[in-house]
This record gives sequence, structure tokens and C-alpha cells, in this order.
Amino acid sequence: MENRKIKIAVIGLGTVGTGVAKILLEKSQQISHKTGLQLELAHAVDVDISRPRPVAFPPGVLHNDLQRVLDDKTVQIAVELVGGTTLAGEIQKKLLASGKDVVTANKALLAERGEEIYAAARQAGRCIAFEASCCGGIPVIGAIRTGLAANTISAMYGIVNGTCNYILSEMSLKSKEYATALKEAQQAGFAEADPTLDVNGTDSAHKLAILAELAFGQQIRFGDISIRGIDRICLDDIIYAGEMGYTMKLLAIAECRSFGSETGLSLRVHPAFIHNDAPLAKVSGPFNAISIFGDAVGHTSYYGRGAGMMPTASAVAADIIDVAQGNTGRWFAQAPGFGRPAAAAKLCPPEAIMTKFYLRLSAVDQPGVFAQIAKILGNNNISISGCLQHESDKGDYVPVIITTHLAKQGDMQKALKDLEGLDTMKAKPVCIDVVTPPEDQ
Amino acid sequence: MENRKIKIAVIGLGTVGTGVAKILLEKSQQISHKTGLQLELAHAVDVDISRPRPVAFPPGVLHNDLQRVLDDKTVQIAVELVGGTTLAGEIQKKLLASGKDVVTANKALLAERGEEIYAAARQAGRCIAFEASCCGGIPVIGAIRTGLAANTISAMYGIVNGTCNYILSEMSLKSKEYATALKEAQQAGFAEADPTLDVNGTDSAHKLAILAELAFGQQIRFGDISIRGIDRICLDDIIYAGEMGYTMKLLAIAECRSFGSETGLSLRVHPAFIHNDAPLAKVSGPFNAISIFGDAVGHTSYYGRGAGMMPTASAVAADIIDVAQGNTGRWFAQAPGFGRPAAAAKLCPPEAIMTKFYLRLSAVDQPGVFAQIAKILGNNNISISGCLQHESDKGDYVPVIITTHLAKQGDMQKALKDLEGLDTMKAKPVCIDVVTPPEDQ
Repeated sequence: MENRKIKIAVIGLGTVGTGVAKILLEKSQQISHKTGLQLELAHAVDVDISRPRPVAFPPGVLHNDLQRVLDDKTVQIAVELVGGTTLAGEIQKKLLASGKDVVTANKALLAERGEEIYAAARQAGRCIAFEASCCGGIPVIGAIRTGLAANTISAMYGIVNGTCNYILSEMSLKSKEYATALKEAQQAGFAEADPTLDVNGTDSAHKLAILAELAFGQQIRFGDISIRGIDRICLDDIIYAGEMGYTMKLLAIAECRSFGSETGLSLRVHPAFIHNDAPLAKVSGPFNAISIFGDAVGHTSYYGRGAGMMPTASAVAADIIDVAQGNTGRWFAQAPGFGRPAAAAKLCPPEAIMTKFYLRLSAVDQPGVFAQIAKILGNNNISISGCLQHESDKGDYVPVIITTHLAKQGDMQKALKDLEGLDTMKAKPVCIDVVTPPEDQ
Repeated sequence: MENRKIKIAVIGLGTVGTGVAKILLEKSQQISHKTGLQLELAHAVDVDISRPRPVAFPPGVLHNDLQRVLDDKTVQIAVELVGGTTLAGEIQKKLLASGKDVVTANKALLAERGEEIYAAARQAGRCIAFEASCCGGIPVIGAIRTGLAANTISAMYGIVNGTCNYILSEMSLKSKEYATALKEAQQAGFAEADPTLDVNGTDSAHKLAILAELAFGQQIRFGDISIRGIDRICLDDIIYAGEMGYTMKLLAIAECRSFGSETGLSLRVHPAFIHNDAPLAKVSGPFNAISIFGDAVGHTSYYGRGAGMMPTASAVAADIIDVAQGNTGRWFAQAPGFGRPAAAAKLCPPEAIMTKFYLRLSAVDQPGVFAQIAKILGNNNISISGCLQHESDKGDYVPVIITTHLAKQGDMQKALKDLEGLDTMKAKPVCIDVVTPPEDQ
């Protein structure tokens, strides 16, 4: 029976870092029993070492001197939980250069500067583990890397940002306005003081970049992802679409799509209406879920907490064990992408994507207006599938809700321009994708 | 870059074996690109080598001589897909003794004769991989083994038999009688010609034994699992409980439970009513899902096809890769249970389990009967939570549906005996557990 001692440094003792320290200090015996690895927290490094933390560090472990970690050749694994894309990148490169494998939850860094970091790891002969970077405690990186290894993945549909999902759930289930739901999410600890990167879709896109590179084995440039957030969503649209049987989710989607005679990868993050019967519609509050479609396995789906101290620490700890056992290193040495030669993703142009749409038009309440609208849609090859207009005597214009059959994004963009040009439109039309995740039947 | 050739033998070319051969023959280049492993199907062995199969075997690969596999020292991994608990066990032991790691989907063998097989593997210095034994293509074994490795698991609630779930879904959603749904499941290929082990709960219990040993790190004896199947379920009960907001599922449950001042493992397979809002209630048709609760990660859930040629072959192929990379071997060498010293599971006595209940009583339609029933329940510490009795003029007795608050199984068994003794009861009472999976809020 092996019983190897593995020394670990944790850099960055925020919420997740503290959770990781807690696991290493309190569960090392249990982990040793299961795995034969004696995990030892040798360094816990943070600029602020005076703040009270709910962990009792052994003497000498807590300090603020990164150099001590770099100089300590007995440390095999370093966990970077500083966050951000600048300082964290320099820290990771130093850790790698000093001969340590790196475990991280830093999705922004890997999505935006991954090539540079992966190259540094390869140059140093080390590896990077990042299960905690996507979907918190859900072991989805492991599932793609190992469990689905024999599959060609055709699509991933995910709810990968707990903040947005909490806000949208509050709006949908309790008819709260966006601003109210956001404020309450901040008070409940589900949104940061500055929630920009969450609500504008960037965080979801970071995760999508990492997951897609892994699933499709192609090099993903972060800039290739089209991103819309939830920060301009109106409660009205959630209510109207709710009447028609739809729920709004912020989806991160990566899938192979045909366009003309070619196929390419569509990478997009946007709010979408999905039918209440779709499994992803039931994922509420701060939970995440991701559906992955493989050619052999069909539809599989993974659900759990997408953030938080202990769920994310659970993923970091799993990575520490996996790196210590050499599994991540063996995977990293061979993985297409992640700094190794891989085809750059061939993209499906956004305008070629076929999808259904929800439209809300603020139309003047007079004869002929609906005919104008229908004509513009028809001229742009868009067929109406449903319509909702409540009787109203409130003013001179009414909201007209239209849902469409599958149509090209490009055609809808043209139709929206034409609709905006109508003098019977009181406001810019609202257009939201209605998404039907692939079915495995 | 490593580029190792791994020779593989597949023993048993039924549905899954043929799927595995298909993956090995058709996807080896893709797998090599991802993993650096060149998987080569060296032997495909079956007693029947004349049956047409949708795979083109290279010359010499398909044969019926197991001894050739045992003698071929270049074969590193053997896949046992013969099934059953007798011949398959002898084959696995021979394969291990001849120095091959074994990959298998054989849940019955591992659940019922696991200790003997694991001991044979340890004696030979080999390992056993069995991702495909539970939940088909869902990588749940990998999730527990790796992704949740830092967690103490408190509970698992699963729908792990696709045949039963298909039948119950048809009964619930289309109001079919059990016999009809079973017959149609057989015609649709979702049930075997002899469905006994599926519908009586044995197959679910086999999977539960394997999953629980892995999740709890304790030695599970198959006989410790209490098992009830769906083979005596009446459509009436599904309809009545449906009116009250419940769906029936065959659940496989393993969880730590308190009883008195102690705690123990409850291991049980039984049909249960779960609330329509519970995520497991939405898992329909041949799909499987399993919810796992860990102390760090909270609630995670895994969903996908629980059977079928390619989903199960996907899991077998994942295991082949994992074994070839040495990951399974390193895990197996250390895992508590699986033939290594582990505490025998301390059980929570079934009669101490607290649960809610659904009761259907066929009561004579006369004054005082409900009072008799309520008195018996009350005397046995069982509190009524809901009641449903449709007005009826059809005969001299009426079905009375009662749901209860949490009560002890032991108390309910006593109450059922008392109820049976009433001369106002026309038939044996029907009693079905109403289960509330743990919540992570």
C-alpha cells in the first residue's frame, strides 16, 4: 500500500481557499484512508494574514510570502485561488517554473490567457488542474475527460453561473424586478458587490471556453464566444413567456452546427427561453447544471452547486488528489488543446444559427399594424408560431408578443431593423432566443 | 508524447460487447489522439461466432476460444461481458490469474460474489473496473471515486433500473396497466424476455451494493439490502397518488440514518412515491439518475441512459482507457472495501427507518370505519397527513387513500397487521413509502 506524503501550498485564502485549507486540515486522515495519499497543507499564503478565518492553521503554515513557497522544493502541488487575470497569471507561472503542479479555480485566467499558462506548464513539465473552474463542485471536467472519453461530443447546454440563475429564478418564481433580485442576491451572498462579470455573461463564457476546449478537443479563443448577459432583462418578458410555457435561463452553449454544406462550432452565452418541460428549466436558485451529448452515450446531465466555499473546495481537493496520483499529469501530457497542437475551432457564423425567437413589440394600437409586423417577418423568412396580445385600454400602444418557428439569426437581425423602422413601433423590439436543447429519444 | 499500444480482449459479444468492439474498431484513432493510447481489439470471443453482428472484425480477431486469450500474454485488458454469476465469475478469475486487468459491466457478479472476485484480482496484482456496471453510460462511479473523493457521502438516491423506470413512466403518464406496460417495454427492447431480475428489484439492488461500497467505504453484503420490486404495483395507486401530487419511482437508497442514539446505513430498494417537484420525479422512460449528497459538495446529481448498446459501451471504453492509464489500478490498490480491509457496514434496522406512507384501504362503506382506521394508526404513533376518498355508489366497499406524516417502518408494520384484522377491510391494505429525498438549500 502506498502512503505518500504530498505537500501542498494554497495561495489566496478567500472563501474557497479557506474551504480548501479546511478540507486539507480536517479530512486528511479520511483522504489517506481512501487514497493512500497523505495530503499536508505546508503553506497557506495570503496578503492578509490577520483576518480571522474559521480554520486553525498549524504554526508556521499561514504567511504572506509567496517566495517561501517558490523556494520550498518539497511542495509538489500549489493551489492558486487569488483570482483575476493579471497577478494570478504571474503567480501561476512562477509556481510552475519552480516545479509545482498547479490546481486552480481561476476560469477567467484560463479562458483569457490559457495558452500562455498552459505553455508555461508544458515548458516546466508540470500540469494544470481546473475542475473547480467550472460549475463549482460538479465533477464535470472529470466526466468529460474520463467518463465520456470514448465519445465525440456534439453539444453542451449549461447553466453555469449561479448568480444569474439565482436572479432569474427569483424573477420567474417570485415576479421580482431585475434590480430587486440582484440586490437580494447580493444580500444573500449569491452575488458579488460588483456583479458585472456574472450578469453580463462573461463568467459563463469563461467556463464555456474551458469546457468546450475539453469537450471538442479544439482550440477555443475566448473572443470566439458571442456573449449576452441578463443585465437588461425585463420582468415583463419573463411573465409573458411564462404564460406561454417558457422559463428564462442564461445558457452557455457549445455545439456542432451545420451551415450550408459545412459544419462548425457555435459558441454562445445568452439568456434564452426554454420550455418548462426541459430538464434545464427545473434548475433553480444558485444551482448549475450541464447537459452533454455524446455519440455513444447520448444525453448525460450533471447537476449541483456551481459556487460556494465548500462545493468549490470539494472540486479543488478532488484535483489535488488527482494531480498527486499523476492522473491529471497523464491527461495533460496528451490532451489536444490546452497548449498542445489542436485545430483552431472552425466556427459556425452566428448569423447562420437557426433558432426560435420570442419577440415583444410595443406597437401602436391601430388597424393594420399586425399586418405590417407579419409582413416584415414573412419577408425575412420568419414564420410566426404563437402570438399573445392582452386586451388593453391603458394607452395608445400595446405589447404584442410573437414567437416564431426556427429562423436564421441573420434573418431575424434584418427583420428587427425593419421593425425598428416602422413608425408604428413605440420602442425598440425585444428579441430573445427560444432554445430547444437537443433531445435523446 | 506516449503512444502505447494496449491489446484488449472482449469476452461476450452480446449487445454491449458488440458496442465495445465497435468503439475499439471505429474510434481508436480518435481515442489515440486524445489519450496517447492505441487501443487494439486483439480478441473478440463468443460461443456463437456465426451470428451476424454490425461490426467488421479484422481477420483472426473473432473466435470462440477463451484459452487463446488466457495464453496471449500481450493482452493487458480483458472485458468480461458474458453476464451472470457463475460462468462469468470463473472467466474473470481465469483472466485475472493470467495477468489481465478486467473491465466489466457485470453488476450481479460483483454484488453477489464481489469479495471472491476482488480477492482474485488482488492476489493476481490486477484490478477490476466496473463503471459500466451501474447506470449505463452515466460516469457515476468515476464521479464518486474521483470528483467527490474529498467528501463524506451521507446519502444516495437513485433511479438505477431503466426497465422499471420505463414501465412506471408508461403507467404514470399513459395510465397503462402494469402487464401492458411490461409487454410494451419488452416489444420496445427496454425489457428482457425474462424481466424478473429487473422488475423484482434485484438488478437495482446489485447496483446499489456496488455504489454504496464505493460511496461509504464500507463492506456491503448484498443480503443487507431490503428489496421490493414493482411487480405487484397497481395502476390505481399510481392514479390516486398522482391526484395528490406524487409520482412513483423504483428507488435505490443508501444513506446514513440515526436510530436512537446510534447511526447506521440504510440500504433499500423499493417503489416509492416522490413529490412531482422532486428532481427525480422528472426522470422518465429508460433514463437513470442518481442524487448524491456529500458534506462538502452538497447535492449533486447525474443523469443519462442506464442501459443500451452504445451508452454502456461508452462506459466500458472509458474504463479501458482508465485502466490502461493506470488510474483504476492506483485506485483499486487503496480503495477501502472491494476486497481490502473495510469496516462491515453497520446497518440501521429497517424497522427504525422513519418515512411517510401512502395507504390504500378497501373499506366497507359504513359508519365508523374511518374511525377504526384512524384509531389503529394513532395507536401505532402514525399521524394522518392527507386523505382521499372519492364518492362511490359502485359497491359495498370503497378505496380509502391515506397519507401519513413521518412514522417508523416498524410501527407501520404493526398498524398494517391490525388493519388486516378488521372485518371491515375487504382486502389486504396497500402500503407504499412516500419518500422525500434530502434537500440541499
